[in-house]
Amino acid sequence: MFIVGELINGMYNNVREAIKEKNKKIIQELAISQTKTGASALDVNCGPASANPRETMKWLVESIQEVVSTPLCLDSTKSDVIEAGLSVAKNKTIINSSSADKEKLDILVPMALKYNSLLIGLSLSKKGVPQDKLQRLELAANIVTYCQESSFPVEHLYLDPVVLPVNVAQSQGIEVLEAIREFKILSDPAPKTIVGLSNVSQGANVRSLINRTFLVMAQGAGLDGAILDPLDKDLMDALITAELILNKEIYCDSFLEAYRKK
Amino acid sequence: MFIVGELINGMYNNVREAIKEKNKKIIQELAISQTKTGASALDVNCGPASANPRETMKWLVESIQEVVSTPLCLDSTKSDVIEAGLSVAKNKTIINSSSADKEKLDILVPMALKYNSLLIGLSLSKKGVPQDKLQRLELAANIVTYCQESSFPVEHLYLDPVVLPVNVAQSQGIEVLEAIREFKILSDPAPKTIVGLSNVSQGANVRSLINRTFLVMAQGAGLDGAILDPLDKDLMDALITAELILNKEIYCDSFLEAYRKK
Repeated sequence: MFIVGELINGMYNNVREAIKEKNKKIIQELAISQTKTGASALDVNCGPASANPRETMKWLVESIQEVVSTPLCLDSTKSDVIEAGLSVAKNKTIINSSSADKEKLDILVPMALKYNSLLIGLSLSKKGVPQDKLQRLELAANIVTYCQESSFPVEHLYLDPVVLPVNVAQSQGIEVLEAIREFKILSDPAPKTIVGLSNVSQGANVRSLINRTFLVMAQGAGLDGAILDPLDKDLMDALITAELILNKEIYCDSFLEAYRKK
Repeated sequence: MFIVGELINGMYNNVREAIKEKNKKIIQELAISQTKTGASALDVNCGPASANPRETMKWLVESIQEVVSTPLCLDSTKSDVIEAGLSVAKNKTIINSSSADKEKLDILVPMALKYNSLLIGLSLSKKGVPQDKLQRLELAANIVTYCQESSFPVEHLYLDPVVLPVNVAQSQGIEVLEAIREFKILSDPAPKTIVGLSNVSQGANVRSLINRTFLVMAQGAGLDGAILDPLDKDLMDALITAELILNKEIYCDSFLEAYRKK
């Protein structure tokens, strides 16, 4: 499972404050703690309120790289902010994300090729949020085709079906789960799949329970990666146990500890 | 979700003792507590050591019926023990279970028809435990065909793909999950599916975590019922949350409590 730690994001108060005060320590602690608890990569997002997002992105990337070599997932709706992060990143990167719109793909696919970066492609377009599995498949197919025609390796692509909050879009959960399953047959080799997990419980109660329940179902549907909070121990326990059941981790009596020691 | 409480089973020490001492109270408390925590039906199994299983089954059924009217799931490998239970049962019943062997179906399908009982059909034969999804499908198809030819309504059939312990048969988890998904296309109307959940964690550590993770994945694959411990609150929380995500329970902030009040 490709686990992207979600906590370095300017929408969280502690990160927003750290950015404002140029307090590296808070950012670096989040980088270390997420890496220790199992993050394969770290999401880096300046947040909506950042005054100078390109400079902020660079400062975040450089601060993180001082303490860990974990791959970074450069997260912005603005391609110039993503490129600012790419320009100073020393290790493997992931671009988070392109929509299925041609004008976005025209910029971000060449950028991913130039920087040898992985790419997250959202089944989303300027027409709005997809309403069912078929709309998600159509948008994902557009992204896959664009990548193939641009010689961008589909193995470097993670398709994101766009998870919506269960409390306002309850019918979309099944559509997302089915989309994860069917994205796999869009090409051979199959594209990988990823979700922004916490969105499923946005605004809801018992968020951790909703998050881990949805994650386990998505793993059962073939999910390859998730952007999530690796400090949530119950969530990580569920993730590891799902990997065990899917025969991706070898059983031993202390399988939870064994996974964490790797 | 059709929830069958598993706790009235002579393989558990407290029940074995209660049977030996004809202590109704213990059985009745288990009937009440499981019904209160969400059991749609109660499994009733004399256990392997019962000296007079037909009399024991009758005594168990009669004891339970004194305190609850919850449907009973009469659980034995011996058809005469099941029929002893059916002969005194006042409410809806489930026969647990027939294998896919003709000689078992020849007895239990007519018995289910005679007593207007539901029937659990195991994808298992005297040749042994199925080793993959296809063997499970073949055995399940035999059961479905037999039922159709006997005018037994497929809507009254629950197919059980035979869950095996993850610590000794780790590759079987995915096969079971895929079987649950594909059993659904064996007939129209589709047969229902059920699992004996606790078997997945037999002999393992962190049993409740393994149980609830497997259950959630199976729900994602379309599972209709499970034989489980409804007193396991974490398990029931996971089950309810999975129903929510699958849009089978309407979201409200207190959805866990709302489900339990029903």
